[in-house]
Amino acid sequence: MMEHISILFNLFLIFVSAKFFNYIFQKIHISPMIGEITAGLVIGVGGLHLVKETSVLDAFSELGAMMLLFVVGLHTRLRDMLKIGIDATIVATLGVALPMVLGYFFILFTDHRGIEALFVATALVATSVGITARVLKDMKLEHTVSAKLILGAAVADDILGLLVLATVTGETNGSIDIYKILSLFIIVVLFLAGVFLIGSRSIKLLKSRLEKMKLEKNEFILSMTVLLGLSFLTSYIGMASIVGAFFAGLLMAELEDRHLEDMFDSIYEFLVPFFFVMIGMKIQPELLFNSSILLIAVIYTLIAILGKYIGCGLGAVRYGFEVMNFVGLGMIPRGEVGMIVALIGLNLGVISSRVYAIIIFMVVVTTLITPFVLSFVSKHWQVK
Amino acid sequence: MMEHISILFNLFLIFVSAKFFNYIFQKIHISPMIGEITAGLVIGVGGLHLVKETSVLDAFSELGAMMLLFVVGLHTRLRDMLKIGIDATIVATLGVALPMVLGYFFILFTDHRGIEALFVATALVATSVGITARVLKDMKLEHTVSAKLILGAAVADDILGLLVLATVTGETNGSIDIYKILSLFIIVVLFLAGVFLIGSRSIKLLKSRLEKMKLEKNEFILSMTVLLGLSFLTSYIGMASIVGAFFAGLLMAELEDRHLEDMFDSIYEFLVPFFFVMIGMKIQPELLFNSSILLIAVIYTLIAILGKYIGCGLGAVRYGFEVMNFVGLGMIPRGEVGMIVALIGLNLGVISSRVYAIIIFMVVVTTLITPFVLSFVSKHWQVK
Repeated sequence: MMEHISILFNLFLIFVSAKFFNYIFQKIHISPMIGEITAGLVIGVGGLHLVKETSVLDAFSELGAMMLLFVVGLHTRLRDMLKIGIDATIVATLGVALPMVLGYFFILFTDHRGIEALFVATALVATSVGITARVLKDMKLEHTVSAKLILGAAVADDILGLLVLATVTGETNGSIDIYKILSLFIIVVLFLAGVFLIGSRSIKLLKSRLEKMKLEKNEFILSMTVLLGLSFLTSYIGMASIVGAFFAGLLMAELEDRHLEDMFDSIYEFLVPFFFVMIGMKIQPELLFNSSILLIAVIYTLIAILGKYIGCGLGAVRYGFEVMNFVGLGMIPRGEVGMIVALIGLNLGVISSRVYAIIIFMVVVTTLITPFVLSFVSKHWQVK
Repeated sequence: MMEHISILFNLFLIFVSAKFFNYIFQKIHISPMIGEITAGLVIGVGGLHLVKETSVLDAFSELGAMMLLFVVGLHTRLRDMLKIGIDATIVATLGVALPMVLGYFFILFTDHRGIEALFVATALVATSVGITARVLKDMKLEHTVSAKLILGAAVADDILGLLVLATVTGETNGSIDIYKILSLFIIVVLFLAGVFLIGSRSIKLLKSRLEKMKLEKNEFILSMTVLLGLSFLTSYIGMASIVGAFFAGLLMAELEDRHLEDMFDSIYEFLVPFFFVMIGMKIQPELLFNSSILLIAVIYTLIAILGKYIGCGLGAVRYGFEVMNFVGLGMIPRGEVGMIVALIGLNLGVISSRVYAIIIFMVVVTTLITPFVLSFVSKHWQVK
């Protein structure tokens, strides 16, 4: 098949299978998101092998995650996020520190080198908020305190992850350049502060002008511009593009235009499934059942789960058990960042392919269990 | 830059520059579509060289063209198209035959081999309906007789182009396999008949069910499924994906749901600019001013323009001068298909790179002049 024909086939197959499994899973009362991941498992390398990853599909998947976080941002009030900022940072910090320390010593004790243990520990740092964001949106929980803590912590988490990764890769080069890391930190903080201060003011200035023009199309164009621009900028300074997308949503929410969300409905329906189908597509079941690494992988994954759950939970202690529980669970999934850390370590030659497989195992398991657990919890307990 | 960062940068830059030039050109009363092509010229290889073609951008461009033709299809009545079918086929046939014969003999007389002349003539065959479709939509002319004739002829034209290309490439292999070409023709006709008969019936059956469910989301999902599915199938049998997209629009128009169009508004706004910006991005101005080929290229382009204009115009003779004029002009742009023919010829070694440049010159010029001419005509004369 010529390239563009196979791209059309992939887009068709992914879209249709996502919607089909979404529908089926809704019927049998399982989270439709798990349906979409299952669709990926069925058509991907772990199943019928009908599609394989290409740069086009990766781009659609990334845009899907961006759309998701943008829409979640649209449902969130900027001032609520600022109010909760310090608490969210505490949640993130404890949720980064605990699994990192536990993971480091565990891998060290299983007879690996210090630098290897450091990489494996770093892979535990950053939460991938896509899964949780989708649960929050599907269950309409975006306005709860837990949701705000999770989203704020995910942003702080991403900054911490960036700094830890810079430190660890510096360590591999033999010298940690403290100025470089400090300047990275300052750039990130200045960038975020700039976005909040300049962005929210400009949006408010624009608001009255847009109201006069009454051009819905212009609001959509403005939103897409902010969305693509901030996603690019955050990924350019080394953070995840979805953090920029979430900020874009937060800023556009200041327009207080209910219509804006409707305009993103169809793009959301089109693009978001690509993110979840691609999660499923990348799962290689043989990796999950490789007995030689299974024991270490399982313990490492338990550390990933309990470390985040307890760390983040402790960070939210002043909000009571329900919030602690939901926040702790919501921060469990690791995603792209964990995989990127593993890949960097592999490319630098500091981790073995065995250790690489262990990290991938952890990413897959933490990603897959979270939607089940969160759906269960939010169905049986009230989420605050 | 890492790949996904540069993709985000490209998407941002293309979207923003498209909207910016669209706005500027509207202000100075030039077709906004030309603004988008200009945006591509400014940021592409002919200008600041900020972006280059990648498979991701090609995919976005193709999806943009599909979205455009889908929405144009949504504005078109299936029964109107069937009514006008035979006339549109006559328009297409004369518009294919005349430039092909003229082009063949012109190139033969300029001292090229017969097989080369055949390829160059084949590149003149297929109209690229994207440009004209956009003018029809921007000027709200979708309901005119001219629009229906142009859209119908573009479909027939694509079938004829497919058959001519199969014949010509057969000729290069030394033998024309008449059975292969005949079976290709039968497949295409059966496919289209199948889409019309089965498709329109199933849509009508679905209509009452969808009305009961009142789920707008389901209509969107159904539309995207039909759009991606038919686009894939038409490109799979060798036609242009936009033909499938147009059919998908025609079929979904049978639902007679005004809401459906609104749901595609934002996807249209997002994706369609990529198609037009990419047209501009691919233009290499140095090619247009290469004196060694300029004379032949200009005459060849005049043949492309006059051959289509007169051929298609004659095909529409029973509709009077206004329709003849607009249909003739609307069929002038050649696009991807012309470039694909040129590329196949180059890869088969039957055309020289000099002749290749002549074909690209023709494609660029016919594409660029049409929006100007059509806007001018539709502003100063009534389009029937």
